[in-house]
Amino acid sequence: MNINPSRLQHYFEVSSGIGKIGETGMCRPAHSALEKEMFMHAKGWMEAAGLTVRIDSFGNLIGRLAGKNPDAPILMTGSHLDTQPYGGRFDGISGVLCAIEAVCTIAEQGIVPETNIDVIAFADEESWRFNKGLFGSRGILGKLEPGELQRTDKDGITREQALRDFGCDITRFKDDEYAPGTIGSFLELHIEQGPVLEKLNKPVGIVSGIAGPLLLSLSLKGMAGHAGSVPMPLRKDALLGASKVVVAVNEIASQFTPAPTVGTVGTLDVFPSSRNIIPESVRMTIEFRDIDMGRRNTCESQLREAIAAIAQQHNLTYELTVDTDIKSSYCADWIKDTIRESCQELGLDAPELVSGPFHDALVMSETCDYGMIFVRCKDGISHNPLEYASYEDLALGCEVLYQTILKMVNV
Amino acid sequence: MNINPSRLQHYFEVSSGIGKIGETGMCRPAHSALEKEMFMHAKGWMEAAGLTVRIDSFGNLIGRLAGKNPDAPILMTGSHLDTQPYGGRFDGISGVLCAIEAVCTIAEQGIVPETNIDVIAFADEESWRFNKGLFGSRGILGKLEPGELQRTDKDGITREQALRDFGCDITRFKDDEYAPGTIGSFLELHIEQGPVLEKLNKPVGIVSGIAGPLLLSLSLKGMAGHAGSVPMPLRKDALLGASKVVVAVNEIASQFTPAPTVGTVGTLDVFPSSRNIIPESVRMTIEFRDIDMGRRNTCESQLREAIAAIAQQHNLTYELTVDTDIKSSYCADWIKDTIRESCQELGLDAPELVSGPFHDALVMSETCDYGMIFVRCKDGISHNPLEYASYEDLALGCEVLYQTILKMVNV
Repeated sequence: MNINPSRLQHYFEVSSGIGKIGETGMCRPAHSALEKEMFMHAKGWMEAAGLTVRIDSFGNLIGRLAGKNPDAPILMTGSHLDTQPYGGRFDGISGVLCAIEAVCTIAEQGIVPETNIDVIAFADEESWRFNKGLFGSRGILGKLEPGELQRTDKDGITREQALRDFGCDITRFKDDEYAPGTIGSFLELHIEQGPVLEKLNKPVGIVSGIAGPLLLSLSLKGMAGHAGSVPMPLRKDALLGASKVVVAVNEIASQFTPAPTVGTVGTLDVFPSSRNIIPESVRMTIEFRDIDMGRRNTCESQLREAIAAIAQQHNLTYELTVDTDIKSSYCADWIKDTIRESCQELGLDAPELVSGPFHDALVMSETCDYGMIFVRCKDGISHNPLEYASYEDLALGCEVLYQTILKMVNV
Repeated sequence: MNINPSRLQHYFEVSSGIGKIGETGMCRPAHSALEKEMFMHAKGWMEAAGLTVRIDSFGNLIGRLAGKNPDAPILMTGSHLDTQPYGGRFDGISGVLCAIEAVCTIAEQGIVPETNIDVIAFADEESWRFNKGLFGSRGILGKLEPGELQRTDKDGITREQALRDFGCDITRFKDDEYAPGTIGSFLELHIEQGPVLEKLNKPVGIVSGIAGPLLLSLSLKGMAGHAGSVPMPLRKDALLGASKVVVAVNEIASQFTPAPTVGTVGTLDVFPSSRNIIPESVRMTIEFRDIDMGRRNTCESQLREAIAAIAQQHNLTYELTVDTDIKSSYCADWIKDTIRESCQELGLDAPELVSGPFHDALVMSETCDYGMIFVRCKDGISHNPLEYASYEDLALGCEVLYQTILKMVNV
């Protein structure tokens, strides 16, 4: 094995202490002081191997290993170092730490790749702080949307303020974009976040494609009133309507089982939230994901019909907005083949599988060919403090990443 | 008219500025600095008329007009000065301000009643701050429950701390209880909080009884997971279960329409509340109210069955606790008759009606006979900034209260 498993383990041990909640949980918000602390460690590790490291104006951490031909389309590899608010030690983090270990190994071996290699930790992949994520990857591709910087977190802090507090100069966005054609390919290692590899007893898998996420926000408005006096038939109860939407989302997504279609309501906030007041309004997030865009579009249209009917039945008004709508995307065959070849050299039989969760790779697929390496995780649990992948599996994944990078940069 | 309508209006105008939200909304939490400010005004008004005023250790404000026979069972009258978090200018407040005006008029007229008259603003009738209310009325009757002082508000402040901050000495609870037999009767004026008087075009009504509230808290626990990867059939989604409970509460209460049975879920909090995470747990409040205890008991048993079935269907665990369970209670015939007589003398045809909302009077009914005077409110709206009663109707109600008090204290 070329990469250094014990150094990789050390990276994880350091990372697991920054934003730790409970025994094994993590909460390292995007653009936070905790993420900055993590960045400083990662920056040090990369600089020790000779990479040139910077934090760009989007809040991405980028370490570059210079190649022979600085003008050739680069290979970019990485993931993200922010976590869910009640997340684990591996989601995102694995892809950054393994990329650091793989590329630093290349640098330490004195190998000079044909092209530059950029190791990246993307800012705010996770989406929860401002209810819109994949920020850093969309940023470097010039795909931020109007008004995005004015989105607020639960404390009322805008994205703009958070970026400033992080030390970012938001007037420099244009300078930090990667022009079309400058990124040749993108490679991301990630834990599977699902149960497939574990069931197949395989440590490493090759991603065939990523399900397209449709992320929506719904506001429902009725009328507050005394819970003791307004007769049931006269009520305009926003929470009753919202609850029927939750049930509808579940039924709509479940109709395609055993297809990988999923639908979730992850947040639901009630106003004014008093036990004696009929809820006046509810804000909630809704999402559907599928690799098959036909099924996902069916989900969306059925949802829109359901919401309209529920609102009419309960005398509610509503506003449904699309926060994120990204098509599903398939990995490049040539990169899948390169990963498979690397696995075979290591004696690994790596199955192909679809990714239900989205990743920065899905955004990157809009500018270049991409590939993903999955590492087995325990019980398919992710976005949960119980999330677990073994250091042995991660080292194997890291070595596959190392071998694949070497092949892709034509060494 | 004996009472002074313009002074009463002044009381309302002062009160409407303390804890104002928006144009006509109010948020004056129990045991808060805002409630203290309101107490200081009310104290001054009562003292100006010669009443002896104190704040007791439960956070009640009590003004006493001394009677000829200080050992005879007293007449107590009042309501509460705390409001809902998104409430109006009349709920509770009307009963205190009208009691102050009526009793101060008696004092100013040089009338010495046979018995003491206590005007009271009860602490924390509204229940929302610590999810358990009727605190002051239960306090003076020695009916607080173990652990109550450790309940916390949304900022983590305990009831005990809030009382201390309010200036209350919680070691003096026993001293501030009213021994059995010392309160002869209780009289409360309140806005109707429902549409009946307005529909009948009557400014004042006589309450026949108060529906019994059953206030419950439910925690549901499932398993967090990535919203993109956990297949629909494998999910343990606490919000999906909670939503089905919301729908069940509505269906259960609605089965008795047009009976006055009501059922409401007013609060529902999701953890960890990230759009990408399947909800792990939900905490919610549930309530049923009815004047008919048979129907209410049916609601409760159907709810318990529904929760058990929903939890089983979605692989959730749950904990259901009873926060408040008070039986419905009928007003004393002799007090109703006295109110009716007072109304007739004023040329008012006052209909009898049930109160869906509970009041401190419901607690007081456990120690003495009680009566309630309702004042018409606009569109039946309450627990809402749009809550409205006219100063003309309130003055009429206050005069009825004045006349009724005089008859009850045998002047």
